[in-house]
Amino acid sequence: MAKPDYINEFEGWKQEFVHHYPITVRFSETDAFGHLNNTVAFVYFEQGRINFFKEIGLVEEWFSKSGEAIPVTADLHCDFMKQVFFDEELLIHVKVHEIGQSSVELHYKITNDKQEVCMTGRGRMVQISRETGKPVIWSEGSRSKLEASMNK
Amino acid sequence: MAKPDYINEFEGWKQEFVHHYPITVRFSETDAFGHLNNTVAFVYFEQGRINFFKEIGLVEEWFSKSGEAIPVTADLHCDFMKQVFFDEELLIHVKVHEIGQSSVELHYKITNDKQEVCMTGRGRMVQISRETGKPVIWSEGSRSKLEASMNK
Amino acid sequence: MAKPDYINEFEGWKQEFVHHYPITVRFSETDAFGHLNNTVAFVYFEQGRINFFKEIGLVEEWFSKSGEAIPVTADLHCDFMKQVFFDEELLIHVKVHEIGQSSVELHYKITNDKQEVCMTGRGRMVQISRETGKPVIWSEGSRSKLEASMNK
Amino acid sequence: MAKPDYINEFEGWKQEFVHHYPITVRFSETDAFGHLNNTVAFVYFEQGRINFFKEIGLVEEWFSKSGEAIPVTADLHCDFMKQVFFDEELLIHVKVHEIGQSSVELHYKITNDKQEVCMTGRGRMVQISRETGKPVIWSEGSRSKLEASMNK
Repeated sequence: MAKPDYINEFEGWKQEFVHHYPITVRFSETDAFGHLNNTVAFVYFEQGRINFFKEIGLVEEWFSKSGEAIPVTADLHCDFMKQVFFDEELLIHVKVHEIGQSSVELHYKITNDKQEVCMTGRGRMVQISRETGKPVIWSEGSRSKLEASMNK
Repeated sequence: MAKPDYINEFEGWKQEFVHHYPITVRFSETDAFGHLNNTVAFVYFEQGRINFFKEIGLVEEWFSKSGEAIPVTADLHCDFMKQVFFDEELLIHVKVHEIGQSSVELHYKITNDKQEVCMTGRGRMVQISRETGKPVIWSEGSRSKLEASMNK
Repeated sequence: MAKPDYINEFEGWKQEFVHHYPITVRFSETDAFGHLNNTVAFVYFEQGRINFFKEIGLVEEWFSKSGEAIPVTADLHCDFMKQVFFDEELLIHVKVHEIGQSSVELHYKITNDKQEVCMTGRGRMVQISRETGKPVIWSEGSRSKLEASMNK
Repeated sequence: MAKPDYINEFEGWKQEFVHHYPITVRFSETDAFGHLNNTVAFVYFEQGRINFFKEIGLVEEWFSKSGEAIPVTADLHCDFMKQVFFDEELLIHVKVHEIGQSSVELHYKITNDKQEVCMTGRGRMVQISRETGKPVIWSEGSRSKLEASMNK
């Protein structure tokens, strides 16, 4: 399988992840081909991403009722490298790749309990106003937290 | 299979449904046993129910942003009579069984394209205040619409 | 809220659960009313149930490729007692209520981190042949495992 | 929003779709931000894709129990251009972009009832052996069907 173009050098890239979130494959997430349905990878990405934002202290405002800014998905990409089956224990790894004015590009790596990479991915989140839908520039504090996560 | 206790007389009960909503089984809704995953029956009930409320003119207020009352699920019951597989074309039938002060009990019947009953079900919805979570008594108008659906 | 009719005495019933499985509410499981979508309760029941079967040693055969008997859902019932929101940490409690020839009735209790009961439920699973769809009577071993779980 | 790099010229690209599949946004597919949860886009892609394969006559073998070859997702990409809300009526458009030895790259376009583009996407499917997991080269017949769909 060809290397996805968002990965420069696979071995180095694999080492750069610090944050991860454990998920066990649910039976309702399998499909009639007997494996994990492809659409569930993006549910796992979302859970890994939210957990990452929580760990670096970005999530409270977004999920409070009064939060004016919310994060939305601008794009998402997943490369499926290895089939995954019911009851496998996975780790969803997430890291910041690049920080924009009001957006952030995240990279994803999903590994199984043999440390094999099953999926890789990337995607850009944008912080927008809940009312107007327009982008909301990162506060100093938010930007610092995203940057700090890159230097661990 | 024993008759569910919310059905008095099966043949008569089956005839009482007027409203229905078509759904084709999605591949992502199957599981590794090769059939429709049991949890999806309740997604189908929800779609049938919302469509029913829409057809009788109850839904606009609930789903507007300013809607103060929203319908929530008090209980749900499903009896699985016949396995369902990928790509089957189903009809989700819904009718009012009983109207309370601020609640309504609905009955459900899911049939396949041979008019076989695959699932039956029932459940009570309660209209509550979005702010307080307390029950909100049906308006005259809402009650009339629910009643009218029973006399068709 | 009225007590569901499958519960004789609520306080005693609540104490009878030994097995439980932790689940954190995912963002993709919420809906536009801001809370957990009702249909997800049954996904949680399924995960609690499978974990229960695993803990008592019943699951290997069912989920192996060569397994001839599989468990299917005969019916499911959920009572929704308390709204649940994003990121809440829940416990899915499962116990055997009654053992039939080829079936078992399970009871469910979902609690939040304040030990409040958010949902209760019940449902019957039947062991069937993957080929014929006919019920398969419990082996001595399987029946013993189900019985043993009731005497803890 | 920048044009995704898999689209050369947006106006021309938009015109090239012949096959489409209608989907109405379900309530259970929304999330607590009030809009369609991002992960559901890939469920819609899957349904559009399967319907496309069905229309061109490729699907029977894959979904029969005896089918030795099955299509799996190699990668998937979605660009989110416009928020989508409960009950919107969407069309999922699918076309072949490129045919490989045992794979095919598909492009996706999701439009609302004002013909606005809400999501675009692309992804590669590979035909593999259910037993070995190895790629299975397209038969003459399958390749012809995929090619024919490009010349409409």
